[in-house]
Amino acid sequence: MTFVTINYITCQPEFAERFEYLFSTRAGEIDKMEGFKYMEVLRPASEGKPYLIVSHWEAEEHFKAWTKSEAFLKGHRRGFEDIQKAKEEGRTPPMTSDFQTYTVIAT
Amino acid sequence: MTFVTINYITCQPEFAERFEYLFSTRAGEIDKMEGFKYMEVLRPASEGKPYLIVSHWEAEEHFKAWTKSEAFLKGHRRGFEDIQKAKEEGRTPPMTSDFQTYTVIAT
Repeated sequence: MTFVTINYITCQPEFAERFEYLFSTRAGEIDKMEGFKYMEVLRPASEGKPYLIVSHWEAEEHFKAWTKSEAFLKGHRRGFEDIQKAKEEGRTPPMTSDFQTYTVIAT
Repeated sequence: MTFVTINYITCQPEFAERFEYLFSTRAGEIDKMEGFKYMEVLRPASEGKPYLIVSHWEAEEHFKAWTKSEAFLKGHRRGFEDIQKAKEEGRTPPMTSDFQTYTVIAT
């Protein structure tokens, strides 16, 4: 039973290019994790809709280990910094997220 | 550039079992289409959230050909009948959908 996580990321329009750059040059930290299968970043065709970061794992425990790892912080460093910087400058966050998890029940 | 479609299906709670059954016994019509790569049905961990029908295609034109095909009607026959039956009996539709399309921009 594959475990799937989806992070629905709504970007400020002016941040979209940076967002795509961050993922096209991602650190690859997640790929080293046990139980990680693959991930995809989906760009919405409709303006204003969220991007989807979809990750496939062998089981939920593998995903949990990732979120608690040093690698997780390394893998998210630039994005976290962008958010932190906006916060300190009193600006709107460049992106917000809604996180959901799923089980693959049919293929 | 892989083209991805996601159908976000919100089921009436009492229809969820039937919904899962329909996909676990699906006709396999889509698999025969040119440009079709694979599909996954995702069951949400959180109650009340939609199921996701995620399909990967080589290009949007292949997906469009599928929606216009005889196979599309065959593949959706039972689900369409369930919706039609509820309509005729004046009941709430067993499921509603929100359809979105995407491009894979990073893996």
